[in-house]
Amino acid sequence: MPRRVDHEERRRQLAEALWRLVRRGGVEAVSLSLVAAEAQVSKGLVQHYFKSRDQMLVFAIEYANERMRERMERRLAEVAEPASPRHVLRVMLTELLPEDEDRRTESMVGIAFFVTALNDAGLAAYFRAGYDELIQATIAQLRAAQEAGEVRADLDPHHEADILLSLVYGLNSHILLGQQKPATALAVLDYHLDRLAAETDARAVLTTNERS
Amino acid sequence: MPRRVDHEERRRQLAEALWRLVRRGGVEAVSLSLVAAEAQVSKGLVQHYFKSRDQMLVFAIEYANERMRERMERRLAEVAEPASPRHVLRVMLTELLPEDEDRRTESMVGIAFFVTALNDAGLAAYFRAGYDELIQATIAQLRAAQEAGEVRADLDPHHEADILLSLVYGLNSHILLGQQKPATALAVLDYHLDRLAAETDARAVLTTNERS
Repeated sequence: MPRRVDHEERRRQLAEALWRLVRRGGVEAVSLSLVAAEAQVSKGLVQHYFKSRDQMLVFAIEYANERMRERMERRLAEVAEPASPRHVLRVMLTELLPEDEDRRTESMVGIAFFVTALNDAGLAAYFRAGYDELIQATIAQLRAAQEAGEVRADLDPHHEADILLSLVYGLNSHILLGQQKPATALAVLDYHLDRLAAETDARAVLTTNERS
Repeated sequence: MPRRVDHEERRRQLAEALWRLVRRGGVEAVSLSLVAAEAQVSKGLVQHYFKSRDQMLVFAIEYANERMRERMERRLAEVAEPASPRHVLRVMLTELLPEDEDRRTESMVGIAFFVTALNDAGLAAYFRAGYDELIQATIAQLRAAQEAGEVRADLDPHHEADILLSLVYGLNSHILLGQQKPATALAVLDYHLDRLAAETDARAVLTTNERS
């Protein structure tokens, strides 16, 4: 009896073929046919799982987000208790930087998705929903850090979250294009985070935070 | 005698056809054939001017940069003398936000170019050179503002320039995708610029700067 291939397992297999294509050939190297060839299955099978390139990108993004969440949870579990909200914020933000091949590929899939969404109202709504989740998590973490006296109380968490995520996306692009090394990008992020620190707590934060 | 078409004029005509395509169909709607159809010329003629899609994108970007510089100079010429360096900085940065259709198209051509450059070392070097020019101009303007006592002297102009341009690119993406209105993006930029203001000068800057 042939081994039954689980539905989710098959989708994951196709998403990973898509990722390998992005890693090798950039975001422009993604199509249903190329994914079929890369996964060594028929184009018909790919179409059985994904009706269009867009659907395939949505799945690849969901898969990437899932991996990102798991990685973040693992890293947060490693943080010594009690974790400071400011440190949790830093872990969240640095996980968005493409420091290794996996995260580099995640970023490139994200850009492919962004570019496609620019011209597709449905995908744009999906993209905005994902971004909203990220911005709300950042705002919540900033507020917790303000309550803990780690971030200046007079700062606007909404504007600060916009600025932090823009900064991370900007640094992301620089790393992808080789304009900046991950370590330099991290130094810029820390420089900015330091300025958000409450005056009374600034020295404590500098010494207790992981700085690499 | 048929009217001779000037070489540069022809290239501009093709770049504008490319822009119309981007405006209507997003960055994915760009190819030599489609540009030829849009400009109502043969594909051979397009290939006479541009050997590849990449060359065409480089020209479109150079053309966009040229237009951006001219627009910036016009806006700076309108600023009442003596212009404060901080105000000049703000004009430079806001010119990068896609507040109208032209700048929206410029941004999308820029993204097409960025995505292509991710997988092409030559284009990546070209892209980095353009970015370097922008970052150096931003650093110079930040330093001038520091000397004029308008920006805090203790800030690192390199890091601040990285943060400002990342912020502008992040806000740019949000506007393009409809996550943020240009006015809201501008409010975030001003919020951040205000924090860079020298304490002694903060009130003066708030009242003398153009705020819309």
